[in-house]
Order: sequence, then structure tokens, then C-alpha cells
Amino acid sequence: MTFDITEFAEGPLRAARDGQGVVTLTLDDAKRFNALGDEMLAALQKALKGIAADESVRVVVLAANGRAFCAGHNLKDMAAHPELAFYQDLFARCSRVMLGIHQLPVPVIARVQGMATAAGCQLVAQCDLAVASSEASFATSGIQYGLFCSTPSVPLVRNVPAKVAMEMLLTGEFIDAETARQQGLVNRVASPDQLDAEVDRLVQAILSKPRTAVAMGKELVRRQREMGVEAAYQLAGQTMAANMMDADAQEGARAFAEKRKPVWSKG
Amino acid sequence: MTFDITEFAEGPLRAARDGQGVVTLTLDDAKRFNALGDEMLAALQKALKGIAADESVRVVVLAANGRAFCAGHNLKDMAAHPELAFYQDLFARCSRVMLGIHQLPVPVIARVQGMATAAGCQLVAQCDLAVASSEASFATSGIQYGLFCSTPSVPLVRNVPAKVAMEMLLTGEFIDAETARQQGLVNRVASPDQLDAEVDRLVQAILSKPRTAVAMGKELVRRQREMGVEAAYQLAGQTMAANMMDADAQEGARAFAEKRKPVWSKG
Amino acid sequence: MTFDITEFAEGPLRAARDGQGVVTLTLDDAKRFNALGDEMLAALQKALKGIAADESVRVVVLAANGRAFCAGHNLKDMAAHPELAFYQDLFARCSRVMLGIHQLPVPVIARVQGMATAAGCQLVAQCDLAVASSEASFATSGIQYGLFCSTPSVPLVRNVPAKVAMEMLLTGEFIDAETARQQGLVNRVASPDQLDAEVDRLVQAILSKPRTAVAMGKELVRRQREMGVEAAYQLAGQTMAANMMDADAQEGARAFAEKRKPVWSKG
Repeated sequence: MTFDITEFAEGPLRAARDGQGVVTLTLDDAKRFNALGDEMLAALQKALKGIAADESVRVVVLAANGRAFCAGHNLKDMAAHPELAFYQDLFARCSRVMLGIHQLPVPVIARVQGMATAAGCQLVAQCDLAVASSEASFATSGIQYGLFCSTPSVPLVRNVPAKVAMEMLLTGEFIDAETARQQGLVNRVASPDQLDAEVDRLVQAILSKPRTAVAMGKELVRRQREMGVEAAYQLAGQTMAANMMDADAQEGARAFAEKRKPVWSKG
Repeated sequence: MTFDITEFAEGPLRAARDGQGVVTLTLDDAKRFNALGDEMLAALQKALKGIAADESVRVVVLAANGRAFCAGHNLKDMAAHPELAFYQDLFARCSRVMLGIHQLPVPVIARVQGMATAAGCQLVAQCDLAVASSEASFATSGIQYGLFCSTPSVPLVRNVPAKVAMEMLLTGEFIDAETARQQGLVNRVASPDQLDAEVDRLVQAILSKPRTAVAMGKELVRRQREMGVEAAYQLAGQTMAANMMDADAQEGARAFAEKRKPVWSKG
Repeated sequence: MTFDITEFAEGPLRAARDGQGVVTLTLDDAKRFNALGDEMLAALQKALKGIAADESVRVVVLAANGRAFCAGHNLKDMAAHPELAFYQDLFARCSRVMLGIHQLPVPVIARVQGMATAAGCQLVAQCDLAVASSEASFATSGIQYGLFCSTPSVPLVRNVPAKVAMEMLLTGEFIDAETARQQGLVNRVASPDQLDAEVDRLVQAILSKPRTAVAMGKELVRRQREMGVEAAYQLAGQTMAANMMDADAQEGARAFAEKRKPVWSKG
């Protein structure tokens, strides 16, 4: 089922796709610092669902317009609804989006051009890969307003060392892009004018691989990470055997044996 | 129930508190390199219990007098009691202290002015945050005396990369403060004369946040870290919704909407 | 039962031992880049089984001859057998070797003189410690041939930060030795002419410790890492108490009390 970008012609999230299966989702609500309001969350959820169902998509780039990458939840909206059920629903919807990235068959690359705070920082942590502009900065800043970044802490502690995560969560202070790279929150840092080129290098690296192997691999890593080592090896061995039965892996192995470049059957 | 510092007027552990809810616990047995003997362990256990019950405490600094931060267990005492039950009891009491730090509602910051070895290194790893003097050093040195640092390995492997932890545990060799920072064992390194100022920056950052949010957050991080990602998101979402119902988070969200500084009701 | 190196006089794996309990296993199939073919896997399995049963072995060095450390599985063989059962059996045998390293009572040090790719990179990640030549390089390159490095991902994600692992797995690109060290994949980097000296420093550090404490410790770390913190402390406390009852730990504690060097009963 083809992911229909025309459904995103209006509203806070723009979608684009090229002929190679690269979908770019752009947070486009610069006035609100791309906050994750109801519309934005609904659009992200819809986009992720559509992408998951479209086997011609190969990789997703999550980008943003404006000075901020994403400022997280809209505290103004939250102040207007002091009700437990409202907050439970809000965080459940947000977590569904984050798990949508986690469970998406294709890799998601964050293109972080500016400030990523609270659930905006969580988005970066939740993506499979991330490239930051040297002008980007990162904070789990909810605690500054009395709201500990609990949901952002989920991917944060799975990306950066324990004490670094705790310092970010307790102080709410910013770290710069180079610190984010050193601590594991992003893969690469580029000057603003090289940001697209650096994202594209990762995109091209993924496009040059068969989609089946990438999808099997992303799912395997997600699952095995939560297992003990022995169970992880069992699942990984089964996954790799199944992967080898795919026509593209057979072609890859033959190409290796014949010392030529593999030719993939699928995009 | 107020944590009573006068109970620590004598003995190897000193307690102090200021008017803002900062409790400083100082290992004060420099002659024995602040070893975790029976008295020291009992005093730490008593202090952590008292602090946990006192809602006016906001943050704990764990400091030490003398050249060493803490040399871990007293091997001389241990040599005098070659009995399994004695050792089981000793390590159980020590682990209770470590879990007391882990479970304390408020953050604990290690102020590491000197050598931290064996269970002394464990104390640093177990604290939520740590600031080291540039003259501090760190080793899980039990193996030098034929005793693998098994209990220290528990927080160590949860703070530093796997092979770094294994090298420290197998060789017993020291790493310096800067290496400790690079590997995630401490947050910051300061020259000896800047150590207090650097600790104070973290203390002030925590004092400026509402106690409820900090306590909910520390507990959530501790719990969600041991869960799969989906269960972690569920718990984190519930925690964050409950956090938002707190009067201080409501004030924080309103202050954000009104573009003013929040005024906390407590702490 | 003595590990018999003469069984490895022929074939792709060479075994050597010195008088101190150091076993060196050398991948010696340079023409095939030390690929993990059937013979190599069988020889490794046999060697690990023999070493596990020989209490006089103290440490294992896993080395390689030729330009590559190990190129992983033999894709040419794999192309010749497009059968699920063949691949399941192959990965099960390979995982058994990897778990053999994981479960071996004595530490295994990888001596990485050259390229370590796919299951070769996995070998490095699976070892307890690793020293790399500055000319070594590392890649989980299966994805280049349509085969995601699923089994290599098991130790990889337990050694390096999440996004670094994902980038290596998705792109298949090489990282150099210094990057591998910074990311936690190896402990130390040495110039080619200093590689043996650097390996030997780790070997000597392990030889100077009692075997019992090292074996108890390696097993404890392996087990407690997969537990929650409270259960981990319980197991660690019991392990440490049992360790203290060993004659060498008693000697170590007495030597500490008497300010002399300990004399170990066993090698």
C-alpha cells in the first residue's frame, strides 16, 4: 500500500518522497518550535502507520523547519487541562509515536538542525541514527518546569551513559552537538551547510542494501537487546538463517564468490 | 520526620545539613582510609534511613576527609573472621547501604577528593552523580588480594562500557579522574580547589527543581531501566501523568504559558 | 584434564601454551582470511572445550596470522548450500563457539592485528578484553552482501553505544582501531610492533591474580549483568562471600593485614 504524501499537504507535518524510497518527514510548525501538539502527534502517527505498510519505503529522514528541531510537548496546552486522564492520554499517544519509530521496519534518521528539548530530545534518542548540525543542542528540560522527562528517559538511558543521562534529566541543562556525539546521542555532527550531505551519506549507505535484510536486522536488534545473551544468540541465529534464504542474500553470497558486485532484486 | 544530624556527632560518619535541604555525609575515618567497617556501614545505613524519611531533604552529598575517598572493606577485619556466615552478613549489610543510595528519593552526589578503591569505587558508581578532583583515582582492586570485586561490579557495569569494566575488575589497576569521566564513572572533574564549586553547581541545579518531580523521576529511571522498551514507556507515561497532577508541575506549565519564572510551593 | 595442544598441530587453528598457563589460539588460515569455515569452527569448539576442562590454564589469547584477523563466515561455502537447515546449523555452531568464549572460566583476550569483519568483529566483541594494532579495522559488513550481521549484533550492542552499533550494522562500513577503542570495542590500541607487549601486560596482570577469584568473577559479571540491580546484588554478595572462603583470598587478606605481598597457593 503506497504511503500517500498528499495527505500531508497541510498541517504541521510535511511529507516528501523521492523515487528511491526515501521519505522525509518535516516538522513544520516553526512558530510553536515544532511542539508535539495534538495535530502533530496525530500526523506523525498517521505517517508512521502509512510508511510501515508501504514496502517501497526504504528509509525515513525526520527533519524540522525553523530554529528548533522540536520543543517537546506544548506546556501551554497542558496547563489548560489539569486532568489526569488528559495527561495519561497525551503521553500514551506520544509513546505510541515513539514506539512507531522503534518498530518501523525501515531505519529512521533524525536530521537535527536546532534545539531538541524534552520530547524533542526523545525523538532524537528514539531514532535509529541521528546527524546533528554543529548548532544543534539537546536538553531534557521538563524538570525546569517541574515535569521530569520520564518518557524521554526511556530512549535516553538506552543511548547515553547512566550518569550523563541522570545529569541531563536532573539539571535540564543543554549539551552541545559535539558532546551529544561523544556521549552516543547522535552519530555525526556537521556544519549547518554540510548537514544534508552528511544525512545523505547515511541514506545512500542504507539504500545500497537490500530492504529485507535491513528490516530483519532492525527488528532483531530491537528484540535481542532485551534478552539474555543465550536467548539473544538463539533468536539471532534463526534470524540470520532466515535472512540467508532471501533471494538477495543468495545473490550477495554468489556475488562474493564470483568477485562481482551484487545486483539486488528489489529496490 | 526530621533527619537528626546530632546522632552523627561521634563516629566515623559526620552529617551536616544547611537550611536548603542539602545533607552532606562525610566519611571521617582518614586513618583507616574511610574503610567500610562495621561502624561506618551502620552509620551509613542509619543516615540513609533517616534521610529517606525526611521530606525536607532535597539532595545528599557524599564526601570524605583525608587522602582517600574510601578504600572499601577492611581486609584486616575480614582476615580475622574466616567464616562464610561472617562474609555473607558483611556483604549483605554493604549491599543494603548501596541499595539505600539507589532507592533514596533524592539524588546522591559523590564528591570524590581522592582514591576510591573496591567498595569505595562502588560507592562512586552507585551514586546518581559524581564529581571528582583531578587528583582522584579509581580501582576495583580487590583482585590484587585474591578477592574479585563482585558487588562493586554491579553498579560498575551499569556505568562504564563492558570491556572497560572487565579490565578494571580483572587487573585491579587504577584509572585517573579524566579517564573515569570519559568512561562514564563520574560526571565532572575539577581541580582540587574547584571541587566544592563544581559539586555546588549540581546541588544548586537540583535545589532549583521541585522535590516531587525529582523523586518521581529518580524512581522511574531506576525502574524503567530494567524493563523492556514497551513496558518502560507504559510506566514512564503513567509517571509523567501523575507528575503533571502535582501542584508544582501545574505551576510550572502555567509559568511557561505566562512567560514568567515558576514559583515552587515546596522546597 | 590437560588441554592437549598437539591435537592442533595441523589444520586452521594453532594452539600453544607456555609454562604459566597462557594458551594462545591462532587463527592460521591466512589464505581464506581466517574465515570461520567448518574446520575452523570445529577446532575452536574443541579448543574451548579442552581449555574449560583444564584448571591449569589461566588465560587465553586469541590471535591470527596474516593480513586479516578474521573475515567471518565463508560466503562462498554459504552460496553453495541454499538450504535453511544448513544455515541454521552453521549459525548454531558459530554461536556455540561464541558462547564458549562467554562461558569459559578464564578470560579471553583478542589480539587483533588486522581486519575483523562480520563474525570476525563478533569474535573481538565477544572476548573479555581486546587489544588492537593501530592497523586493525572493524566492520559488521554482512549487510554489504545482503546478510545483516544478526549474531555479531549480540555482543556488539553489549559493547558499544546503541547508535554506533546501529550505524555499523546498517552501513557495514569500517571503523579504525582508535575509534573502536573510543567506542568500547577494544581496550587498547598499540603500534604493530608494540602489540605483543600490550597484550602481554594484560596477560601478566591476570596471571598475577588467583585463578579461582578470576573464574568466580568472570562468571558473576556474566550473570549479574542480565539481572535487575537487587537480584544482582544478592548474587554478587553470595559470590564474594564464597570467594573469601578460598585459601588464596584468605592469604590475600592476611597479607594485606601484615603489609606483605600475598603468596598464592595455586598457579
